[in-house]
Amino acid sequence: MSGFVSFVSSGPGDPELLTLKAVDRLRRADAVLYDDLSAGPILEHAREGADLVGVGKRAGRPSPRQDHVSRLLVDYAATGARVVRLKSGDAGIFGRLEEELIALRAAGIDHEVIPGVTAASAAAAAAGIPLTRRLTARRLQFLTGHDVSGVLPGDLNMAALADPGATTALYMGRRTFAALARRLIDAGLSPDTPALLAEAVSTPEERLSRHSLTGLAETAGAQPGDAPALILFGPLAEED
Amino acid sequence: MSGFVSFVSSGPGDPELLTLKAVDRLRRADAVLYDDLSAGPILEHAREGADLVGVGKRAGRPSPRQDHVSRLLVDYAATGARVVRLKSGDAGIFGRLEEELIALRAAGIDHEVIPGVTAASAAAAAAGIPLTRRLTARRLQFLTGHDVSGVLPGDLNMAALADPGATTALYMGRRTFAALARRLIDAGLSPDTPALLAEAVSTPEERLSRHSLTGLAETAGAQPGDAPALILFGPLAEED
Repeated sequence: MSGFVSFVSSGPGDPELLTLKAVDRLRRADAVLYDDLSAGPILEHAREGADLVGVGKRAGRPSPRQDHVSRLLVDYAATGARVVRLKSGDAGIFGRLEEELIALRAAGIDHEVIPGVTAASAAAAAAGIPLTRRLTARRLQFLTGHDVSGVLPGDLNMAALADPGATTALYMGRRTFAALARRLIDAGLSPDTPALLAEAVSTPEERLSRHSLTGLAETAGAQPGDAPALILFGPLAEED
Repeated sequence: MSGFVSFVSSGPGDPELLTLKAVDRLRRADAVLYDDLSAGPILEHAREGADLVGVGKRAGRPSPRQDHVSRLLVDYAATGARVVRLKSGDAGIFGRLEEELIALRAAGIDHEVIPGVTAASAAAAAAGIPLTRRLTARRLQFLTGHDVSGVLPGDLNMAALADPGATTALYMGRRTFAALARRLIDAGLSPDTPALLAEAVSTPEERLSRHSLTGLAETAGAQPGDAPALILFGPLAEED
């Protein structure tokens, strides 16, 4: 008897930004394996009696090894359970989804992926601005601020990132933003390029602030707290 | 007495991919202004008696002018109505959101933006692949296949688009894909780069097909029908 795993995208944090399909899968789950950012009120959609298992990883804190999470997922499903693997934002974007998919395939366990609202969409919506603009921001790109070793990736495509005609959404990039901004300016992007820092977006702790590229570079890393942060920069529209 | 406008992202098509917040706003709306791609079962969440107004634009067909849509939106809200402006996918991504925001601001009408699931996330989820990969696809970019005049934009950043280390999601790009693929290959991207064509993603008519960049260039434009299409290309993971 083999179980079934639903990779469920939990969205940016607000439980009202779960999709109907995500809520359905949570209600029917025997076990929910969740990241730190998917905890709290989102888990209240799970039925009473479901196993709720935190497998959190969060910037700057030790976290279970990825292969341990994959093994736990396989072990739960192998009992015949209906398992939800809850991943913050959209599971397919910087969510380490592939490693877990590979483990399930190797074990012959059926699964599905439920897409969700990614943090960039939520940050732009909260600020009342679009991510793309018809004439000035026709390309949108997503980047993570640290690679597997926790530092800014070395092989960045600066021609892509320093493009004044693109909006860039930087995930988990507060700590390395000063280094990135230096490289962007060296590559020709204006220091005055608008930037938006969105912390804990869509939660009661949400904080949005507008900066220039250089202004944010000076303050981003210095800000305390470990709230998840998303940074938008590029030819951003004026806010409300 | 002034109304209120909720820009509501309706997701890729499956009504189960609406967020709880989107459903709430639909239920409470006096009027719903919707695009073609947000029609059908999604509108069943609106309450009986609500005005349902199609303001569709769809590739290849005449559509109401953008300034007409904006005026209609302002006129409805000015009656004091609670208006939902339903936009397919995520409203902030290639949704012409900014023009309507500007019109509302000029008229002094309060509004909010509810983010949603964009087609790229839904296409990848349906294919069982991630949009980003830890070592091979650390940048994700979104592009539209036609500019305001309906052709491939002339000022594309080829260094960004021909990057073998990025996943690209091309919206509304089937008709111009052959031209784009030629430019990508000229710029050095391998003709064998994996590509995925996702038509009518998350609907009962969904069709997914895997190709190489050149293979899809040969067939994409020739395919009949006006189902919405999203193309992913780059170092895509193997599917299930």
